[in-house]
This record gives sequence, structure tokens and C-alpha cells, in this order.
Amino acid sequence: MQISELSDRSGLTVQAIKYYIREGLLPKGTSATATRADYDRRHLERLRLIRALRELGELPVATIRRIVAMVEDERVGLGELFRTAQHALGPAVHCPPDDPDRRAAHRDVQDLLGELGWRVSPRAPARDLLAHSFVELRRLGFPITLTDLRPYIRAASDVAEHGLGRVAGGEPRTRSMHCMLVSTVLYEQVLTALHRLAQEDAAARRFGDA
Amino acid sequence: MQISELSDRSGLTVQAIKYYIREGLLPKGTSATATRADYDRRHLERLRLIRALRELGELPVATIRRIVAMVEDERVGLGELFRTAQHALGPAVHCPPDDPDRRAAHRDVQDLLGELGWRVSPRAPARDLLAHSFVELRRLGFPITLTDLRPYIRAASDVAEHGLGRVAGGEPRTRSMHCMLVSTVLYEQVLTALHRLAQEDAAARRFGDA
Repeated sequence: MQISELSDRSGLTVQAIKYYIREGLLPKGTSATATRADYDRRHLERLRLIRALRELGELPVATIRRIVAMVEDERVGLGELFRTAQHALGPAVHCPPDDPDRRAAHRDVQDLLGELGWRVSPRAPARDLLAHSFVELRRLGFPITLTDLRPYIRAASDVAEHGLGRVAGGEPRTRSMHCMLVSTVLYEQVLTALHRLAQEDAAARRFGDA
Repeated sequence: MQISELSDRSGLTVQAIKYYIREGLLPKGTSATATRADYDRRHLERLRLIRALRELGELPVATIRRIVAMVEDERVGLGELFRTAQHALGPAVHCPPDDPDRRAAHRDVQDLLGELGWRVSPRAPARDLLAHSFVELRRLGFPITLTDLRPYIRAASDVAEHGLGRVAGGEPRTRSMHCMLVSTVLYEQVLTALHRLAQEDAAARRFGDA
């Protein structure tokens, strides 16, 4: 296909596509004539992934380049690929590094992961978010117990398993990465929105509407 | 108790407490002597709620004043009180008002809530967030189906019910409001963090660690 069709089907402008080619995020098309290049399905998949990384993750071009290179490199397993992308997505929590409460909360997170038997890298930014939430909860007078966490653990596991189910076997790696990204970022928004709506419904049922 | 003890126990500075009294968020203490006022348990509960509203919701003083006045007014039911606070928390989604995709997504959200039988105000900001997520998912080539939403609906309901369980019967209304706020904001962070961790674990199990 020509660049105009690639633009139509990816939802990106021709300028943006040329920019991604210049930045090394997308390979050049094959030269059909002196002034026209041809693009194929792989270019389209790649562009859709780049767009999702930019729009959903708000990732800088250098990070997108690194992820795209890993997608390209078949020696990199999907587990490592997903982990790299997920860690790049954050969420970044600003924290004073040597706060004793924070250190204790990180140990609690580690103990919890150990108890659950979850295989999570020591560098996963979600550890920081969970430790941060634990610190805040304690500070506001709501200490964490494993019993209180159980429903959240179950909900998170169920939804994570379901999200991973979107990654089919045998599809292009760009597409697998794209599915994972959508499951992480967009379906997390869906979960948050549904949680707020479910809370409003539950409170209305228990305490009345008016 | 004196203002210094109130400061210790609420985790707020004396200056902050005096500011909240001036702004009408907290009633004055009873005058014990010409230079000393006495504060009681209700002042402490109120301050803890104000602190949670400021820190978790980043709400402006005018909004906090409105919520605190509703907490004080026993004619306002807990259902209405929680709903007001939740709507103030947002999340605010910036959206072009007359976008046809957005309008269609809002109808889908309405249909979904109707099908679930959830009692949710037409003004709930979480409707915007859900509609926004639907639009984004479609735009990126992931149309929504009810089957795909089921696990998220179940997870959101379970967690919302559990969160509401933190609100005990017969406790002061400031405390009930405080519990609700923590369940909404902090436990939503806990859920997000656990979701990311569960995803990393699920991907490691399915595709390997290295």
C-alpha cells in the first residue's frame, strides 16, 4: 500500500509516519518507483503499536524505539518484552528513597508477593505504588491486613488472567504487544470506572438514593 | 484536649487547624480560659476527614466545606453524602462535548448500567471515564463486548461491596465518610498496583521469566 493508505488505516498523519521512519521506529517502505514506496501489513501493525505506546503510555520516542527493537528481536521472549513495556509504563510514584515507613511497606509488599507466589521483578514500579498505598493507608489510620486485601488480590488476578487471554498464539509480536498494552492501560481505566459506578450503586442500595 | 494535642493526633500543624477554623471547616473549640480553647473527639474526627479530603481527593477548600456541611446535616442520607463526595473526586475526563463517538459510548454506558440494574446518577463522572475508555478501545481496534466486560464488572462489584463493608453502622458520620473516601481512592490504587503485579506474574507464567 502507499503511504496515504497507511495513514488512513493507522489513523496517523503522513507527517507522523515520515517522522517515525526518520527516528528509526519504522523501517522504510520498499521503493516501487523513484518517488513512491510500498508499505505492507507489518508496517501497519508496527504503526498501530507505536500509536498505542504514544497515546496510552505517553512514552518518549527513545523508549518506544527500545520496545520496538525488542519486538523485532525474536530472541527476546514475550515475558521479557511485556515486562519491559509494563515497567516503562510506570506508574511512577515519587517517593523519598530512605523513608523508614516506605522501606517497611516495601518489605510488606515483598512478603505479600512471596506468600502469593507471584513472580514479579524487584524493579517493577507497581511495587512502589502498592508500598505507597500501604504507607498512606496506615498514616490515615487504616492499617492493612491480608484479609482486607483478599478481595482485591482475587479481583486483580481474575482481571489480569482475562487480559492476558487477549494475546492469541501465533499472531505477529507487534499485535501481541499491542493487546497487552490495551489490557494494561485501557482496561485498567475500565476497571476503575466500573469500580466507581459499582460503589455508587452499592451505596444507593444500602443507604438509599435521595 | 488542647490545640497542641489535636495537632499531634490529627497529624496537622496548629497553623493548618487555625486556618480550617477561619475558613469555617472546623468549629471553634469551647473557651476554657481567655487564652485556651478545648477540643474534643468530634474535632479530631472532622480534622481527619478534612485531611483525607485534601490529601486523597486534592479537593479545593470550597468543596471540602460543602461536603463537611453535608456530613453535619443529619437530614442528608449517607447515600447522598457519599455520592456527592464521589462526584467531587472525579475523575474528570476532558472530552469534546458534541463528539458523536462519545455520545454513542455514553449510550452504551447507559445500556450497560440498565442491563446490570445499577443505580447510578446521570451526573456520575465515572460514566465519562467509562465512555472515554470505550471510545479509545474502539479507536485502537478493540471493540467492547459484554462478554469481555464481565470479569471487570464482577471484579469491580466484589471490591465495591467489600469497600462499603468498611463503613460500620452507628459510627460518627465523619468516620463513615472517611472510610468511604479511603475505599474509593486508596484501595483503588491498591487494586491498580495489584493488577499490574498480577499481570507480570501471569505473563511470566505463560511466556517465561527470562
